Parts: sequence; structure tokens; C-alpha cells
Amino acid sequence: MYKVGIVGGTGYTGVELMRLLAPREDIDVVAMTSRGEAGRRVDALYPSLRGFTDLKFTHPDQTDLTGCDLVFFATPNGIAMQEAPALLNAGIKVIDLAADFRIRDQAVYEQWYKQSHCATDWLEKAVYGLPEQYRDEIKSAQLVANPGCHVTATTLAILPLITTDFIDHNRIVADSKSGASGAGRGAAVHTLLAEAGESVACYAANGHRHLPEIRQTLEAVSGRSVGLTFVPHLVPMVRGIECSVYIPLRAEPEQDLQQHYQQFYANEPFVDVLPAGMHPQTRSVRGSNRCQMSVFRPQDGDMLVISSVIDNLVKGAAGQAVQNMNLMLGLPERTGLDLVALSP
Amino acid sequence: MYKVGIVGGTGYTGVELMRLLAPREDIDVVAMTSRGEAGRRVDALYPSLRGFTDLKFTHPDQTDLTGCDLVFFATPNGIAMQEAPALLNAGIKVIDLAADFRIRDQAVYEQWYKQSHCATDWLEKAVYGLPEQYRDEIKSAQLVANPGCHVTATTLAILPLITTDFIDHNRIVADSKSGASGAGRGAAVHTLLAEAGESVACYAANGHRHLPEIRQTLEAVSGRSVGLTFVPHLVPMVRGIECSVYIPLRAEPEQDLQQHYQQFYANEPFVDVLPAGMHPQTRSVRGSNRCQMSVFRPQDGDMLVISSVIDNLVKGAAGQAVQNMNLMLGLPERTGLDLVALSP
Amino acid sequence: MYKVGIVGGTGYTGVELMRLLAPREDIDVVAMTSRGEAGRRVDALYPSLRGFTDLKFTHPDQTDLTGCDLVFFATPNGIAMQEAPALLNAGIKVIDLAADFRIRDQAVYEQWYKQSHCATDWLEKAVYGLPEQYRDEIKSAQLVANPGCHVTATTLAILPLITTDFIDHNRIVADSKSGASGAGRGAAVHTLLAEAGESVACYAANGHRHLPEIRQTLEAVSGRSVGLTFVPHLVPMVRGIECSVYIPLRAEPEQDLQQHYQQFYANEPFVDVLPAGMHPQTRSVRGSNRCQMSVFRPQDGDMLVISSVIDNLVKGAAGQAVQNMNLMLGLPERTGLDLVALSP
Amino acid sequence: MYKVGIVGGTGYTGVELMRLLAPREDIDVVAMTSRGEAGRRVDALYPSLRGFTDLKFTHPDQTDLTGCDLVFFATPNGIAMQEAPALLNAGIKVIDLAADFRIRDQAVYEQWYKQSHCATDWLEKAVYGLPEQYRDEIKSAQLVANPGCHVTATTLAILPLITTDFIDHNRIVADSKSGASGAGRGAAVHTLLAEAGESVACYAANGHRHLPEIRQTLEAVSGRSVGLTFVPHLVPMVRGIECSVYIPLRAEPEQDLQQHYQQFYANEPFVDVLPAGMHPQTRSVRGSNRCQMSVFRPQDGDMLVISSVIDNLVKGAAGQAVQNMNLMLGLPERTGLDLVALSP
Repeated sequence: MYKVGIVGGTGYTGVELMRLLAPREDIDVVAMTSRGEAGRRVDALYPSLRGFTDLKFTHPDQTDLTGCDLVFFATPNGIAMQEAPALLNAGIKVIDLAADFRIRDQAVYEQWYKQSHCATDWLEKAVYGLPEQYRDEIKSAQLVANPGCHVTATTLAILPLITTDFIDHNRIVADSKSGASGAGRGAAVHTLLAEAGESVACYAANGHRHLPEIRQTLEAVSGRSVGLTFVPHLVPMVRGIECSVYIPLRAEPEQDLQQHYQQFYANEPFVDVLPAGMHPQTRSVRGSNRCQMSVFRPQDGDMLVISSVIDNLVKGAAGQAVQNMNLMLGLPERTGLDLVALSP
Repeated sequence: MYKVGIVGGTGYTGVELMRLLAPREDIDVVAMTSRGEAGRRVDALYPSLRGFTDLKFTHPDQTDLTGCDLVFFATPNGIAMQEAPALLNAGIKVIDLAADFRIRDQAVYEQWYKQSHCATDWLEKAVYGLPEQYRDEIKSAQLVANPGCHVTATTLAILPLITTDFIDHNRIVADSKSGASGAGRGAAVHTLLAEAGESVACYAANGHRHLPEIRQTLEAVSGRSVGLTFVPHLVPMVRGIECSVYIPLRAEPEQDLQQHYQQFYANEPFVDVLPAGMHPQTRSVRGSNRCQMSVFRPQDGDMLVISSVIDNLVKGAAGQAVQNMNLMLGLPERTGLDLVALSP
Repeated sequence: MYKVGIVGGTGYTGVELMRLLAPREDIDVVAMTSRGEAGRRVDALYPSLRGFTDLKFTHPDQTDLTGCDLVFFATPNGIAMQEAPALLNAGIKVIDLAADFRIRDQAVYEQWYKQSHCATDWLEKAVYGLPEQYRDEIKSAQLVANPGCHVTATTLAILPLITTDFIDHNRIVADSKSGASGAGRGAAVHTLLAEAGESVACYAANGHRHLPEIRQTLEAVSGRSVGLTFVPHLVPMVRGIECSVYIPLRAEPEQDLQQHYQQFYANEPFVDVLPAGMHPQTRSVRGSNRCQMSVFRPQDGDMLVISSVIDNLVKGAAGQAVQNMNLMLGLPERTGLDLVALSP
Repeated sequence: MYKVGIVGGTGYTGVELMRLLAPREDIDVVAMTSRGEAGRRVDALYPSLRGFTDLKFTHPDQTDLTGCDLVFFATPNGIAMQEAPALLNAGIKVIDLAADFRIRDQAVYEQWYKQSHCATDWLEKAVYGLPEQYRDEIKSAQLVANPGCHVTATTLAILPLITTDFIDHNRIVADSKSGASGAGRGAAVHTLLAEAGESVACYAANGHRHLPEIRQTLEAVSGRSVGLTFVPHLVPMVRGIECSVYIPLRAEPEQDLQQHYQQFYANEPFVDVLPAGMHPQTRSVRGSNRCQMSVFRPQDGDMLVISSVIDNLVKGAAGQAVQNMNLMLGLPERTGLDLVALSP
């Protein structure tokens, strides 16, 4: 039985980690910390967890996590880089679900996140937690930076093509649509049901923090500069991301693209390339750790369209974190994650 | 390994049965029938099931279910009473998720369902599949009539009080709100997103088929005539039922009602009485087989309010059917049903 | 051309007042105040108003409203009783859309709103702004207290019966469902799309502030004590209220109830009794100032069901306020309010 | 007073035409035809219209439209080309809201719509009803082909740039998201609330009928071949379209693009270019005839992003049809269309 802790447990990634971990017999969640809810039962905040946990939130300053095998940081950006190093230095494994350790280049990090990084030594050691690309590194990592939600849907859609020569690496477009849970549980006006309901809009069209993160992986894998336009949209639903990626062709592909995608992900437990002609729906992955995707080539022309769907709270956050935890702890990767999506 | 079949597998209760049964190692779903989709892979209709089943829908006339231990009828009303008797007579257990065997009194059935009953001998033998009331009978039943969705939420809310003397049994009101999946997967205008979205309305206010079903149980349990007004409402969401039940007091209750409800359901695996003051939310039971409820007595006055929530497709349909299956097959009742709700 | 001001213009009732008033040629909105948005263009906050107004929000302390004929208070509870008296004493007409002047009995007000009232002299002079009951008083009022949203739907549903003898005045139940805009535009967790989306729940089941307001009118009109249980629910949509009212019969009604309702509201411009058998839908009144309702008597039994729908921001707030303004200024009551609902 | 008729009045464009026309004093809607609902009051199907019309649907075979000044066809594709010519030959003006007369090239029409065209003489005479481009032609047209909904949002977003040299005309991407009312009021499974709710998906990714229509206008205006990838998406809401258009730059634009867009549409009554930095929201145009759009150039790079929003039933269908009617009848273009959007 492994002991794990969750720092910052009141947000959606916190409760989702509990949804995935509480039923497991090989994992014991020994602590969930919260500054605002310390002393309150976790299942009082999330009645969905009644019967699955007796934990109370504890104040982070009064919580000893040093007995943990692994600690998740489900905190806002900027917390993990302050608090994780003490645990890491004590030999505890850490998965940060926020952005603190995602961007390898400190200057790029500071440009996009508008704050200086205070744990640059760990920044270098952090492994980027996209198992489909970095599985081996994750297995031996002490610190894993869990990818962003839009990032996961987008990167997985592009990866099979990024090392090929027949695409135009400089004019890729990713139009991503997310449900409102992606914005977190913080009180805010723009994600009120009365604001975000019955409406669609893009946001951060001039540049979103997920852009450098996507490019970082694609450039590392391809060894080339990648030109990507990434525009996120807010759609009126709770969970789910659909990302439509548009990739211009520079030359005729040498292989059948449907086959290529299927083969590329043939051994991946959580990436599912749909049969030709099917359109992925976010509801078909709701609550599951799966990414489903389809490849289209409209009118057999010179633009590919890949549509990729995930549940932003699962494969886009807590589920991928558990997948990383399984790898880091030497457990079978699918443990606790063989979930059938809730559809309808 | 038990073999089970699903007759009429294309609807929402069909896919939900598969969501619950496909991951189980003690159950083998050997057939799903469909007239319209025969020959098509089940996971082509429901991509959420990809990787969990290789079944194809088969035409009912070409499907031999006689090797099954148990068969679910997830068909429209009127089918099971025609087709189930042959299986029953062959010794196979049957759970009907439609209404054919719910109403014991043939005349009442025919009045509300506007058709004559063609399997009245089995009507007599059928056990009503509400485990909280009829657990022992279900264990030894060959034919179980799975309750309606509104019915489950409403009946469970009232049961703890129906044998008491301090309530007015003649003026109970149940105002029930359901998501659109309760109307099924049939093409229809009134449940289009463009019709039912962003709108709330009552329906069948002059009398809904769930009314006699609720009264049947309450009257059987209490041994009295019960006067109930039941009005269902359609609300713009996919899953979930909230039923607010209003029960007038005739006298001061002799016991603390919060305690009474908690004790009444203390040993029930799937009924969860919330702490005093909490308001049940349908999202806290989404995807789970749970009924959560709370008891209120506004201004300490003479009207009780019980709010009860379920997922209409789980505790209101497929989940309860699996619970009944577990009982009928002698399996632990919770097997495969210890699901944490998907919240948010 | 009348000059009107709006105090507290950033909330939903503020923008809705502008939607209704900006296109009018007989009304000039000369000021919208806001502490938080002072200096910002109104149409920067509400792009729906682009081209309809050039106003900027102004700080209330720097806004001279003494040139106005009428001022709307679209402020949180507790503001109007502080700020309106100065305007009233200067002879300006005032409509308060909050609750400050709704409850005539100061003690009842202070019990439910947990604050002392600081303008009790005006409390006495205030007219309750339900035109269907108090039209004449409104015409000559200087201060009108605009009713609450649930209140309007509920009260209009009950009014036609409250003076009759055949109903049980002590056991009325009102189960009301509201979209999330009723909770206002304040940043809050429980009305985030990710919290309130895809879920239904009751709230304030032990007692909601709208209860004493409904009872006040019903008791004033009937001259009797009225026992009412009122439970509000939050449903996942932006606009709309459906209230199902359950009224027990004590005796057989002497008149046809359908006819009675139609006649009762025959001359009302904004109350529409639907033909027998139709179920009101909130979408059929979305954006309009109308209340639509239907009367049911299930199984010809001893319980009446009245379903009543309004748009909470129009007939439940800003539209009714404009209706009151029209009456107070001596304008035709329907001016600017003959709006076809946005359906679908 | 002009007399107009509506052929095929039961769909969403039919009721929306009535919402816009019924309150007008210069227009008399003398007939709405329907095969399925003949004899039923229009306001029985659409209670939002109660009090605004006394019309009953009439069977098209029994409806004499020859007294009309103008007739709208709000019918499915393929009807108008059969039935409109008789009216046209009688000198009556016609606006077709379906696709029959949108595609000038008969071969292209037949390729995409899979049926032969039976009114090719009128196809030649039809004017494409996008006033921003063809205002003068519309004024003198007898037959106007009203544009598709996605088409309007997309075309208006691209028009200001299509004649410039600094864009790459061959690699334009349009990612469009539509609410479910765009699919019409026909009973169907995929647009049920339980299917389309809480989910996002692309559809027709390999080629949608709106593609040739968009290209036709852009190529006619620019005199060049235009390469466009258009992918529509279904999002879980009733009304609204957001289209994000991605246009690669080939060279540095010679003008400020924000200014360019503002000037291009400076005199357009229904196109509103938002101030720099604002993101258009579909709710800000809900119920209005407006297109709002914004221009972005992420990271000052080589890809432009234009986000364009409309209400698919208004500027994307009935509202634009009324705008065209105003032009064809010589009325001021804005008549009856100065509507403030319903927001929230």
C-alpha cells in the first residue's frame, strides 16, 4: 500500500484525484491539504465522495507529508515550485498538476507566467508527464510535470506527424474547445453559468500559456522549429475538450494516414484512433482517461484535420497524473484507470 | 462466469448496462439484440465502449438466449411481456427494465398503458425490483420488474414515513425533475436540444404512468390508501432526477426525523441520507448507483420536504437492474456498483 | 422624454433595464452608476448594448440624479434604503428592484434579511409593484418595491384562487425552479457553470426570503392566514422560472377553473392563461415580460396544480420594473414591452 | 402594408420570421403553410407567438399566395426550386432560406446536394442575399438566395481581406461552432439533448455543403481561386455560431488590420467590429441580427485569427432574410431589426 498526499485538494483536480484513488486498494490517500477548508470533511465539500473517504482537509502548515511515497500538487501555479522542493529533497516523489515545472526554459516560463522561478534546479530535473512520449523517463523520475489539458489533446493529435517531412511545420493551427471545469473552481464572473452558459467564445486569442508548452514538446521531438497558432474556446459544458488541429501538407504523404495513426498509437492504453469517418465526441471519453481522435483529409486536399477529444479533468489532469503515478511507482500503467466513459 | 443477454441494446439503458457489466470479470455479456442495428458493432454506436466489448448487435429473431443465466429486457414497453415468457419458461432469469411487469393489478396496468397484458401469469409471479423494500423476494425471483426512474427517487423518499401515523397520507405531493436521457434515445422533437435546452416545463401534469407505480408500493407497505400528486418536469441536462416530496404533518412526529431517516437506511448500500442542512445535488450521484436525500422541516412547520436525487440511468434504471441481478445470482449486492459519482 | 437613472448598473437587472429602455424614444437613460466599473463604457461590459448607448458607468458619489424623473435601484439588498430617501425627498420617483421595501412589516423584514431597516418612513409609503394586484396604487406611487422573481411566478399562480373558499389555504406548496441568472452576476462558486451545470438541486429548503413576500400579498388579498411551503431549486439554464404550485381542495369548486383563470386575467397585458392541456415552458417567455400559466386537476382529484413560467430577468425583475415605470409616469402600460419571446 | 407569405412555417426559421415580422405594422403575414400542421393555430405550436398572430397553418396545396408581395421559403432543401418558379413567374418576389438557389454553378450544386436542379433558369437570376456584398443587386432582385448560417459568419470574417495580396488565399481555415437549432426542428437522434448535450464534436469534417458556398463568394469577390478548409462543430447550446478563421500571412500587411476591419464595415448596420482585444461571444448577439467580430494577430506572427459570432437563426437565417426583404421592398434596411441581444 502506497501512501500519497494531495496538496491543494479543494479544486476540481483534487476531487478528481480522489475519485480515481479512493476506490483503490493499493493506494492510501493519507492527506488532502487546504488553507480555506482545513478541518472540514472532504465529503462535506464533495458529497460524491461520501463513503469513500473519511479524510478531513488539513492546513498545509500542519500537515506532515514526509511519510508519503508520492505527493500530488493540485495547487494554483506558483505554489509547487515553493513547496515541492522540501519534499523532493526528502526523497518523496512529486507530481505537479500545475504549470511550475512544465516549461524547461526558465526565460520562456517567466515570460508567459509573469513570475520568476524559485526552483530552477528542480526545473532541470523535472520530467514532462506525457507518457505517450516520455514513458521511460517518467518511470524513473522523482518530479513529474503533468501536462496542461488543452496541451494533451493538441499534442497527442500532432505527435504522429511531427517528425514527417510532408507537413508544413510552420503553419499548424489548433482550435481547442473546453468545458468550464477547465477554468477551475475559483469564484469568477466569466465562468458563471449565467455568463458562460448558452454561449461560445474564444479567449486569449493573442497568446495562451499552453502554446509554449505544446511547442516545447513538438520541437523537442521533431528537432525543428514548429509554428503553431493555438486558440482556446470556452463552450457551455462542464467537462471535455475537443481540439481540431489543421496541418497543411507540403507534399503527398508516403503512407496511409489512417493506418499511420493507428499504428503510431497501437500500443498506447489511453489513446484510441477511431475508424475512418467517425467523428470524436467529448461525451465518449467523459470520465475516462482516454484520448480519442480521428484523421480527416477533406476533399483529399492539402490540409489535414485531426480532431482529438479528452476529458479535461481526467486525461487532461488527474487521470494522466494517476497514469504517471502508476509509472513512477512501478505499478501497471492502467491500474485504476480502465474506466468506461459516462455516455450519454 | 455468468452469461447474460441484453434484449434491445441500442437505447440508453442498454449502453448503461454495458458500462456497468463490461468491466466485470464475473459476468459475460454474450448478446445484445437490436432490430435496427443488427450486424453493427456495439462500440460503433457507442464509442465509449471501445476496448470493452467486441460484441455486435444481433437481430432478436436470430439470437439464441437460452444459454443465458439471466436476460435483461431494455426494450420499449410492451415487448417483454411478449418475449420474456419463452425465456422464463426455459428457466432463465429475467429483469425487465420497462413497465410490463411493474403494475400488479392488470386493470390498472391496462388503464395507464392503453394495451392489454398478454402475460398475466408472469405478472403475478414478478417481483418488484426495489431492493430496499423487496430484497428477499428479489433474491429468489425468476422475474424482476425494475422500477421506473422517477418512481425510485420518489418512493425511496417517502418509504421511511409511510407507515407512520403523524403524516397525512392523502395529500402527498411529489415534484420531480428529470434530465432528458429519461425520455430515451428515440428520435423526437420535444427532446431535441433546441427544444428542451434552456427551458423547464412540467409534462403529463394530469397524470403520469409513474403515479400508480409509486402508489402501489406505498399502499402495499403501509396497508392504507395513499393520495399522491406526482408531476414530472423536464430540465435541461442529460442525467439526473431530483424529486422534492412534500408531506403534510397531521401530528407532531414522535421521533427526530433526521435520525429516523438515517436509521431507516443505515444498512442500505445505495441510499445515503445526507447530514442535516445539506441539499442533495444530482451531480453528486451522476454515474453512481446512489440515492442521496435530505429531510427538511421548513420553519418547524407542518410540512416536511424530502429532496431525493438519483442518476436516472443508474439507480433509476441500469444500476438498479444490476443490483437486482447481483441479488438474483447470489452475488454480493454491491459487486460492480461501488462507483464514485462523476462530480463535477 | 423622461430622464431616468439606474443605480447599480453592472448586474443583470441593470443590463436588462438597458435592453428594454435604450431603444425607447420616450425614455432617456442619463446615468448608470457603479462603484467598481466607474469610467468604463457600459457597452464594454455588455457588448450587446453596442450602438444603443454611449453611457459610461459613473461613481454613485459623483453622479447627480436629481434631474431624473425616475431612478431604478438595481443594487444589492440594503443599498436602496440608504440612498433612495434623498432622491425621494427631492421628489424623484424610485423603483427598487431589490428587497428593501418589499416587506411591509419591519420586524418580518429584519428577521429574514438580518439587518435593521433605516428608512422605515418610506417603507410605509412604498407600494408593492405587482401591477396585476396593485395597479392603481402604483400609478400614484412615488416609491415602488419591485417583487422578487420567484415571488412573481408564484403569486400570480395563486392569486385567482386565494379569495375562494374551496381551497385549503394552509397547505399550499410552491416548488419553483430558476435559472442561474437569478443568483446575479457576483463571482461565486455555487453558480459556476462547472458547479451548477448538468445538475439540479433545491436550496434554502428550510426557508427562503421570498416566502414572507409571497405570503404578505396572499394574506393581504385574502384577509386570511396563508400556509405556504416554498422551495426554490436551481436548474442548469441561464434564464427562466417555472413554479409548480400545489393547492389542496377542501370542497368542489363552484366554477370551471380553466374559465376562472382565463377570466381573472382576461384584461392583463402580461399574464397569459394557456388553453387547457398545454404545459407552460420557460422558453416560450424568454426575453418577454409575460407570465404564462396552466391549471391542472390531476385525475379530477383533490389537488390543483398550477404551472407558471416567467423570465426571471424580465417579468421577474427589469420588465416588471419597466411596467411599473410606465404606470408611474402615466405612459401606456405596454410601452416598450410588447416583445415576442426568443423561442427556441 | 405589404403582404408576405411563409412556405414551410413549422421549422425554426419559420417561427423566427414570425418573431421578427408579427410585431411590424408595415408587414402583414397572410399565410404560413405546413403539410403536417395544417389547420393548427401557429401559436399552438409556438406559444411564444400568442397574442401576436391569429394565423393557422394551411396546407400548401390549399394556400393561394398569389396576392403576396413577397414569399419566404423556409422549407427543406429541394422544395423551393420546385414551388417558387410559379410564384416568381406571377411576379412575386421570393426569398429562399434553403440552399436551392445559393450555388450558381449547377454542377457544383448537384455534386454537393446530390440532386438535380429543376429550376436552372431561376438559378441564373437569383441574387445571393449577403447585403454586405450584394446590397444593390438585392434591391432589384426578384429572387434572393439567403445564405447559410455558418456561411454568413465565415464569409463576413474573411471578406475584408480577400482582395488583399498579403494573405495566403490557399490555406485559409474556418473552424465553426454552432448551437443545435442550426440542425432544425426535425426529429433526429444526434441532436437530442441527451446526445448533443454536454458534448462537443466536429461533423462533416471531410466536406460540408457550406464550403462551396463560402468559396463561391470569396472567389467571385477576389477573382482568385481560394483554398479553404471549413469544419463545422456542434456545441451544446440552442442558438449561436462562433467561427474562428485562420488566415496565413504571406507578407506584412500594409495597413493596421484593426482599422482596416473597422473601416471596411463602418457603414454596415449589422456588422460590428469590436475594439482591439475583445473576444466576441455568441450571447452578445443572441436574438439580434448582428455579426460581431474581432481581429487577432497572435504574437505578431504570420497567422491572423478572426473570430466572428452571429445568431444562426437571425443573421444566419431569418434576420438576414428580413434584411433582404427590406431591401427588396424598398424599405429602410434596419426596419424591425434594431434588436438588442438577449444577454445574459
